[in-house]
Amino acid sequence: MALASSNRPLIHFTPQNGWMNDPNGPWYDAKDELYHLYFHKWTDHGSVIAPDREGEGIFSGSVVVDYNNTSGFFNDSVDPRQRAVALYTLHSEDAQVQELAYSTDGGFTFEKYENNPVLEVNSTQFRDPKVFWHEPSNHWVMVLAKSQEYKIQIFGSTDLKNWVLHSNFSAGLYGNQYECPGLMELPVEGTDKKKWVMILAINPGMPSGGSANQYFIGDFDGYKFTPDDHQTRIHDHGKDYYAFQTFSDTPSEDGVLGVAWASNWQYARHVPTDPWRGSTGIVRNHTLAKVPGNPETDLLTLVQTPIFGDSIKRQNLHKTSNHTLSKNESISVSGNSTGVFDIEVEFTLSPKELNSRQLQLSILSNKVHGTQEEIKLGYDANVEAFFVDRGVDNEFNKNVFFTDKISAIAEPLKTDEDGYKTYKLRAIVDKNLLEVFLNDGVSTITNTFFFSSGHLPESVKLGASADEIYTVDVTVDELSLE
Amino acid sequence: MALASSNRPLIHFTPQNGWMNDPNGPWYDAKDELYHLYFHKWTDHGSVIAPDREGEGIFSGSVVVDYNNTSGFFNDSVDPRQRAVALYTLHSEDAQVQELAYSTDGGFTFEKYENNPVLEVNSTQFRDPKVFWHEPSNHWVMVLAKSQEYKIQIFGSTDLKNWVLHSNFSAGLYGNQYECPGLMELPVEGTDKKKWVMILAINPGMPSGGSANQYFIGDFDGYKFTPDDHQTRIHDHGKDYYAFQTFSDTPSEDGVLGVAWASNWQYARHVPTDPWRGSTGIVRNHTLAKVPGNPETDLLTLVQTPIFGDSIKRQNLHKTSNHTLSKNESISVSGNSTGVFDIEVEFTLSPKELNSRQLQLSILSNKVHGTQEEIKLGYDANVEAFFVDRGVDNEFNKNVFFTDKISAIAEPLKTDEDGYKTYKLRAIVDKNLLEVFLNDGVSTITNTFFFSSGHLPESVKLGASADEIYTVDVTVDELSLE
Repeated sequence: MALASSNRPLIHFTPQNGWMNDPNGPWYDAKDELYHLYFHKWTDHGSVIAPDREGEGIFSGSVVVDYNNTSGFFNDSVDPRQRAVALYTLHSEDAQVQELAYSTDGGFTFEKYENNPVLEVNSTQFRDPKVFWHEPSNHWVMVLAKSQEYKIQIFGSTDLKNWVLHSNFSAGLYGNQYECPGLMELPVEGTDKKKWVMILAINPGMPSGGSANQYFIGDFDGYKFTPDDHQTRIHDHGKDYYAFQTFSDTPSEDGVLGVAWASNWQYARHVPTDPWRGSTGIVRNHTLAKVPGNPETDLLTLVQTPIFGDSIKRQNLHKTSNHTLSKNESISVSGNSTGVFDIEVEFTLSPKELNSRQLQLSILSNKVHGTQEEIKLGYDANVEAFFVDRGVDNEFNKNVFFTDKISAIAEPLKTDEDGYKTYKLRAIVDKNLLEVFLNDGVSTITNTFFFSSGHLPESVKLGASADEIYTVDVTVDELSLE
Repeated sequence: MALASSNRPLIHFTPQNGWMNDPNGPWYDAKDELYHLYFHKWTDHGSVIAPDREGEGIFSGSVVVDYNNTSGFFNDSVDPRQRAVALYTLHSEDAQVQELAYSTDGGFTFEKYENNPVLEVNSTQFRDPKVFWHEPSNHWVMVLAKSQEYKIQIFGSTDLKNWVLHSNFSAGLYGNQYECPGLMELPVEGTDKKKWVMILAINPGMPSGGSANQYFIGDFDGYKFTPDDHQTRIHDHGKDYYAFQTFSDTPSEDGVLGVAWASNWQYARHVPTDPWRGSTGIVRNHTLAKVPGNPETDLLTLVQTPIFGDSIKRQNLHKTSNHTLSKNESISVSGNSTGVFDIEVEFTLSPKELNSRQLQLSILSNKVHGTQEEIKLGYDANVEAFFVDRGVDNEFNKNVFFTDKISAIAEPLKTDEDGYKTYKLRAIVDKNLLEVFLNDGVSTITNTFFFSSGHLPESVKLGASADEIYTVDVTVDELSLE
């Protein structure tokens, strides 16, 4: 397989050639049972929506299925499930305005609306419309960013062409500007309730550096989002998770699916991949659950679950159950030939107090001229935090914005009466991308990493810094494409 | 000077031996014109307040001057300016309660109140009282943390002994728990107005890892803090700035002075210093100013200015004015013998677009057996961010929580009609501590760094990645103690 020598991700989307940033207009065509995903400049099957004039650009936006032909663009020749309408930002030096285009061929080509723009407010910083149908209030809703006024604006429409401003939302970290807002209605696990989640991206200005997403939980009546509290939650604790967008019109049994750009504006233009730069994160399903923020207080929290398509083949390389690690042993699994792993470690930590209580999972490369490279992740019981260290000694890693060490916290899944605590760590490794799911997805860490040329993830090694502290169940799968 | 071979900070406070974390009860004695600072366990001049029973601990708190003897602990033998009362947390396995102690000798020894505790609510997570006199409402105010309920609580008292709950405040990043709250009234630069700032520390759970402070700006009527907005501001963007506390009863002409612990719970217990661990940051004066968050919106922002005591001697090592850097030159300043620098770089950036537009300031160690170590900071005009890279290739730097690369943003101080932008970067380097002030303190980055044994900051080097991009004014001072 030609890919085996390339660091191109296998189970994540990358552009064939050139650059990508925000994923765009993901939607589900229920007739052909096809998930659509566009990316910056709305390409993939050729350029689907292109600017008409030099100096203009097509920026982020979304696609909805106008099943009932509220827009009037469709006739009976187009199956209701394929009546795709795109709302996107047209960027020029003078202004950012919202335009509309519609497709009569199932989303492969789009025709621009003749009376564009459909929304303009005389601003150069007004972008990233995310549109959806809100059934209870019987109208279309658009959330978009008045970026440099630190506002998410909520508009409504009955025909996708005429839009009325209903409310503003502003919260979280200030950063430099707001981008790529989103609103999604999610089930609360263990109840029959649903709550709404507002996604808000800032760039730059995250405390961890550059671009990232935060979220807020609350209620939405079709006109206004009212958060439950004034706290800020972090969408993903890694440095490479931005411009998240949900898929429109997915079957309800598939959940609420979304996808992000797995990079950071601080270094995205310089990552050592060729002939492309940028990829998406894995598609994730989203729910809410009450989980402990600390021993006294449970917090409603976003739960993210990775979704693997049918075309991904899984081969088990290793399975260990209920094994207590000694300091001088390690569980080593080698021989991966695709550079793609799905690793699950459930561990139970003894309450024994020691100076060092670290569980470490290493992702090791193949050897090239005798050199082997390694990234590390794990859990430190003294610091009570999960960690990722993607630092490698090569030229790209000298980039002063490519932060090596990232951490995140999670309370134990359970604590037994003797004080033994159980946690889960899942790592999906795809060539140069690491997605970590803590405790079944209550916290995630998405980080790119860049081994030197020719080095690809080939083996994993699990060890502990002390005897009989960690008892583990380990599964290591190799993933490939059928 | 014996210190020259040690990495003990010179112009920052460190304990003579052993451990320190939170600075405690800083206050000003107006009679003897003496600034007092205690640290964890309330020591320095011996143990000032110690627990009575094994298994108990004295945790953070504050000292106020009870000028009018509202508490009744004092008689005329104690000068009103020295009527020091300490409120602090007594920690035991069963509860955290607030106790009171008073001093009749100007704060060198304290006597515990016989009817302690003065405040208990049957909680093991209730701590860090910060007390001050609120003149308009004519009572004492205490802010403290109901840590694991994510609440800052505001109490009032007329005698420092009886306390009534008035309100709760909750905002910002959730993290794991709240600690060390603070409220300070600050002048707004360029106006005759004052606004209140709420400080809220979280640990762990900062997106940058571990412990840090956030702040909120609003109004306070003596009973309730009302924030101006629901956004979160970051107090210091480095990994080593926690448990900030203002000095009580300072002369108004000295401003609003505060001090923090310059470390992070993620690695504080392991830093390679001996025979002490931990230091404070430099004392800073605080004001508010409207500064651009982006080109469209000005945000009220905390401005921090370092304060140097009279005992600090300053010797200029280098001064350059209006010099345009070429790619192949650098401004090098060597020969520092104290390991302590105060470096100011004001730079003007040309609007010329190039692939690389980085200004880099290196802090270099002396050579030990031919090896020299370096930390880097600077500004990248393409990424539009300031950066610090404290990564050094030695054993301690392998600590998976000792993040190497930190960044922060600031809009230009001014942009001229031709698009030239001016910024300021100030770096105070003290042996193993770096405090960076951007644009006169609108953003700060405080980071410890750990060269290998025997290596101390000795020289600095300033360079640019391209020709004629940066025009600089540079001042490098060496600091020492008289």
